[in-house]
Amino acid sequence: MVYIIVVYDMRADRTRLMLNFLRKYLTHVQNSVFEGAVTEGDLETIRNHTQSLLKPDESAIIYRIGSDKYVERTVIGDDPTDDSQFL
Amino acid sequence: MVYIIVVYDMRADRTRLMLNFLRKYLTHVQNSVFEGAVTEGDLETIRNHTQSLLKPDESAIIYRIGSDKYVERTVIGDDPTDDSQFL
Repeated sequence: MVYIIVVYDMRADRTRLMLNFLRKYLTHVQNSVFEGAVTEGDLETIRNHTQSLLKPDESAIIYRIGSDKYVERTVIGDDPTDDSQFL
Repeated sequence: MVYIIVVYDMRADRTRLMLNFLRKYLTHVQNSVFEGAVTEGDLETIRNHTQSLLKPDESAIIYRIGSDKYVERTVIGDDPTDDSQFL
């Protein structure tokens, strides 16, 4: 398993497509940020499908981190852990 | 030095405050994402000032990674490395 963080920048009216897809694999931690541990196979699927969802001028960055033990996460302000607020 | 990734979620008309601040320390890699190597002192400043810029319902996440050698970064779609497009 690898730990990944995915951030994306899409037109607001199209983000639901990305949300619905990434939610199958990862935890939604901020408006356009997901993270979690996935298999190499899942990572490949995420890369390919993310690419297919993006239009010109939209982008995503996938940070792949060896393990979550290398990452320390500090949330400042409102912690949007409740996914429902993004629906 | 530690490697950090900062993602924030703010009202669109207020993001310039965060942009102008984080730009002093980090590289702007996506609409609301910055990353780079900083000192522990800079990290403390970034934490405190980020907190002071956020209003209720806004948030930021700071990922602190031991070193950039633990992170592999894949950009999908339009690579917004040119900061000018965010101005």
